[in-house]
Amino acid sequence: MLKFPFGIYNFKIKSYDTDHNGKLTLPTIFHLLQECAWENAQANEFGFEDLEKQNAFWVLSKIYIEINEYPEWKDDIEIKTWPKGIDGLFAIRDFQIFNQGKIVARATSYWLILDQSTKRPKRLEQFNFIHENFFKENAIAKVLGKVPFQGDLAELDKRKVYYSDLDVNKHVNNATYVRWILDSYFSEENINISEFEINFLTELKLNDIFTVNKSFEECVYYYILKNKANKDVCKVKMK
Amino acid sequence: MLKFPFGIYNFKIKSYDTDHNGKLTLPTIFHLLQECAWENAQANEFGFEDLEKQNAFWVLSKIYIEINEYPEWKDDIEIKTWPKGIDGLFAIRDFQIFNQGKIVARATSYWLILDQSTKRPKRLEQFNFIHENFFKENAIAKVLGKVPFQGDLAELDKRKVYYSDLDVNKHVNNATYVRWILDSYFSEENINISEFEINFLTELKLNDIFTVNKSFEECVYYYILKNKANKDVCKVKMK
Repeated sequence: MLKFPFGIYNFKIKSYDTDHNGKLTLPTIFHLLQECAWENAQANEFGFEDLEKQNAFWVLSKIYIEINEYPEWKDDIEIKTWPKGIDGLFAIRDFQIFNQGKIVARATSYWLILDQSTKRPKRLEQFNFIHENFFKENAIAKVLGKVPFQGDLAELDKRKVYYSDLDVNKHVNNATYVRWILDSYFSEENINISEFEINFLTELKLNDIFTVNKSFEECVYYYILKNKANKDVCKVKMK
Repeated sequence: MLKFPFGIYNFKIKSYDTDHNGKLTLPTIFHLLQECAWENAQANEFGFEDLEKQNAFWVLSKIYIEINEYPEWKDDIEIKTWPKGIDGLFAIRDFQIFNQGKIVARATSYWLILDQSTKRPKRLEQFNFIHENFFKENAIAKVLGKVPFQGDLAELDKRKVYYSDLDVNKHVNNATYVRWILDSYFSEENINISEFEINFLTELKLNDIFTVNKSFEECVYYYILKNKANKDVCKVKMK
């Protein structure tokens, strides 16, 4: 087994983690999940700094999250996370979010290790990431593939990538893509999301211009961000 | 004296609190200071919820901050804050940020209590906010007036207010204005800010369009955000 087959991390929800209803925002949930993933990876010696030494870095490729109840300002939440296994080049990691001992959200996520120079995925085994060592419990049993897509796209907005959208990797942070999509969603809707699935496909860079595109079919929202070359940046399905 | 003449709060710097150099960002410092202000105000029964019951809310009007050393990812910092006194309709609150026991940043800030309906300032005394009760030590002895302005303005950017820029008060959060200014600053410069002074003058609302304008004189940067009517939204002086 791994040294730390799972990690449990505590967070107190701050005012700035919440929206105008005092509920934890989905971009902040993405930040928190990522923070826990990094902490647990680091404890097991395949974290940010370990990979950096080997000229590599983690990227989140796909994630599906179900939220039953949004934690609120001042709540003390607990996030449990564990690497669940390997699927080809993907490392799978699951999450549970607890509020007062009750599971309020669950997620499953697929990650790649990319080479800093070539930006190509590397085999996981060389980073001490071995399927047999994992705690195989499911937070969600769902297997993630490509986000399906239905309907006709309508372009909602055109935006630019700013300095503050970048993270410590100098990439647009995952949570930023989620924030951009919710900016469009909440300009029309009012109800919080209960299911959110996203594929990260192409990277945006500082000063890039991109469009936010939407389709709505059978009570499901589909969003696609597209870069200047009209290539899909990320694809979202949400309810 | 007040029940809690000062408050001391601890934070662990998360990856998403930092920039691409792993240093705590200035917008996050604004979030943290605001969080501490709210906590200490609440402990003294003139906090967010106390004011809400009286149809009123706090707004930050002016703040000056000096940063000697930016805390980094994974640092455990401590913020000490106290209401320092009253200047007319302004409540003055000072801050010290400690990293490993050493003061790394200091700030002084001027706040108003506004009426929810009229948006006009209210007298502080009716909110149990009485000068005589305060801990009068200075983090910074500086008295804040209007940010002075020098030079000719150049328009750098035109942007829009999105849903994610709003806070629990449904206003654009202070930290958001700071973020917009740094987005422009860091598109040209590389060096972190050591002194930052801002006046908040006019509120922006969801979907508002605004411009970012700059002047640079004698090694000092001046920024002004302007709304569609060309009215100053906020004014910044920074080094």
